[in-house]
Amino acid sequence: MAFEVIYTDTRTKARLGRLTTTHGVVETPMFMVVGTQGTVKGLEPRDLLETRSQVVLGNTYHLMLRPGREIIAAAGGLHRFMGWDGPILTDSGGFQVFSLAKLRKITDKGCVFNSHIDGHEFTLGPAESMEMQRVIGSDIAMVFDECLPFPCPEDRAIKSVEQTLKWAKASKDAPHAQGQQVFGIVQGGVYDQLRRKCAEGLVDIGFDGYAVGGVSVGEPENFMYQAVDASVPYLPEDKPRYVMGLGVMHQMAECVARGVDMFDCVIPTRVARHGTAITRRGNVAIKAAKWAFDQGPVEEGCSCYCCRNFSRSYVRHLLNAGEILGMRLLTIHNVWRLNEFMAEMRTAIAGGYFADWKEQIKETT
Amino acid sequence: MAFEVIYTDTRTKARLGRLTTTHGVVETPMFMVVGTQGTVKGLEPRDLLETRSQVVLGNTYHLMLRPGREIIAAAGGLHRFMGWDGPILTDSGGFQVFSLAKLRKITDKGCVFNSHIDGHEFTLGPAESMEMQRVIGSDIAMVFDECLPFPCPEDRAIKSVEQTLKWAKASKDAPHAQGQQVFGIVQGGVYDQLRRKCAEGLVDIGFDGYAVGGVSVGEPENFMYQAVDASVPYLPEDKPRYVMGLGVMHQMAECVARGVDMFDCVIPTRVARHGTAITRRGNVAIKAAKWAFDQGPVEEGCSCYCCRNFSRSYVRHLLNAGEILGMRLLTIHNVWRLNEFMAEMRTAIAGGYFADWKEQIKETT
Repeated sequence: MAFEVIYTDTRTKARLGRLTTTHGVVETPMFMVVGTQGTVKGLEPRDLLETRSQVVLGNTYHLMLRPGREIIAAAGGLHRFMGWDGPILTDSGGFQVFSLAKLRKITDKGCVFNSHIDGHEFTLGPAESMEMQRVIGSDIAMVFDECLPFPCPEDRAIKSVEQTLKWAKASKDAPHAQGQQVFGIVQGGVYDQLRRKCAEGLVDIGFDGYAVGGVSVGEPENFMYQAVDASVPYLPEDKPRYVMGLGVMHQMAECVARGVDMFDCVIPTRVARHGTAITRRGNVAIKAAKWAFDQGPVEEGCSCYCCRNFSRSYVRHLLNAGEILGMRLLTIHNVWRLNEFMAEMRTAIAGGYFADWKEQIKETT
Repeated sequence: MAFEVIYTDTRTKARLGRLTTTHGVVETPMFMVVGTQGTVKGLEPRDLLETRSQVVLGNTYHLMLRPGREIIAAAGGLHRFMGWDGPILTDSGGFQVFSLAKLRKITDKGCVFNSHIDGHEFTLGPAESMEMQRVIGSDIAMVFDECLPFPCPEDRAIKSVEQTLKWAKASKDAPHAQGQQVFGIVQGGVYDQLRRKCAEGLVDIGFDGYAVGGVSVGEPENFMYQAVDASVPYLPEDKPRYVMGLGVMHQMAECVARGVDMFDCVIPTRVARHGTAITRRGNVAIKAAKWAFDQGPVEEGCSCYCCRNFSRSYVRHLLNAGEILGMRLLTIHNVWRLNEFMAEMRTAIAGGYFADWKEQIKETT
């Protein structure tokens, strides 16, 4: 059994799970750090272990463009290429085709687009995406889907869900790497009936796990919870549920309360590169002049490598001097912070006080 | 005794030494890695230990401009500011004033110049330099000197050496941090008599060690050895000798054969950031297309973290994708390479085969 629910909260739908992959067992609920181009920016595999990262998310779109399928195949897959022996989940590339690339046309077979790097023309559909994910050798592959923008008119959303279901079936039927799990993605925008239809359609096809997609795309927070509420009840209890692109602490807690197990987001790594520390008391701009002489750690009470060894004064200096070590140290802190937050959440669920804990953390995170 | 010569080669002037500092004992001959702005670019203290770095060189000029004296004082010195518990040597800032800054005027008291960062006006002379180095708390401080360009007319060199000797005396007489050693710097350009005069003048003042300055400033290789040959014989046997700004492997070996113990250079860290690996078979441009599919390490037989874990194909991808991890991994490799080279050199001296070893490595490094 790849996924096992080991405990369910009595006051919410939160659950503790154990997800078994080809490269190890993962405790859920969990946060996945994003390694877009075959590296979590500035971190190496030993840093991922040290920050208690369980799963790395690789971007199929980026890896297809650079270094490309052949180079990853020559290495024997992404695990060996990047030296990461733990689990890897790959997205399908659909989101990036619609958000980054210059899209040329969409057919049942997929999308024709121009690379955002050099304009080179590519085709990406269920066949190409699953083939790339097969070569990458990710532990979990995502189906190729269309990620709708917000807002989106209902007629467009209806057509898109039809397309997404066709692509999901084609993704399921394509060849996969040995032991590779495949997750479906529920789309449907803010339309509850469409979300339900999409979820039920995916369950009919049958997947190893299910994601809620098309959230965290600029919509107000309540629409996000609505999308989750309209999707999760129609997904099987015994499969993992994954909200894509979400990494805000209290939002993850709210989704866990609705029965979600997995998250990913570029926020912790991206904001670190801009000098922002994520803390349990909110975001902190470490470049600010008020930290110039501050000998305290980036976050009081934090046990990450950055906070155990360096002061705000030093990290601020590095950031202001343009030293890459500043970005690296904040990345280490932010990734640790989110992983520790999820560990704390698992402890709260196991301890039976998750609902109270969730209310308490809402004010600061 | 701060410096002890523990063995001298019979066929050359190479020697094995042990330099005791407030932050530990250093084996010589040795290479010092440069941490310009309070960090060896991209590396943290644990990386310095792992790459077998013994001493970090801090740049007084850069640290004075940013973060500035007060912030380093608030941290209790550079060791605590950057989290490095090993020995630190600081230069005087003279070289950067003459090479980087917009120099306004020179007097017996020092230089008035505009910061290369924001144009702010600073004064840097023996008093200011030694005060900044005192606050930094380096284990070894260098006297404030004028580094002559190449070529330089003899009359200018004569005046400059007079100035350098005055500044050396003033630097010696200034207050120092507790346990801080102070090294003099022999200048004199390509003029043997001037080098001798400067060396003898410095020995009269009396320092804990002596550097040969004004080399590796664009002069042909033979002029560099000439400057070393014209300086070293007039320096005491029982004090360490340091050629500043030199980090080319066979050149360091040649200088060690002439009785030199210490070196520093930005080359290993700077070229890493441009994608060049330093190897025992010469420099290698890792970005080159020929490494696209290469599963071998950056350098065959190397035991550094980069070479033990990653392929040329992967490091090349990181560099071409602009990922900072690529620069970081090559920096780790290059620093390790030079430190290992020096360790190999010490073994050759101890084993009595240094002269043969030096001839053998000349062809490839």
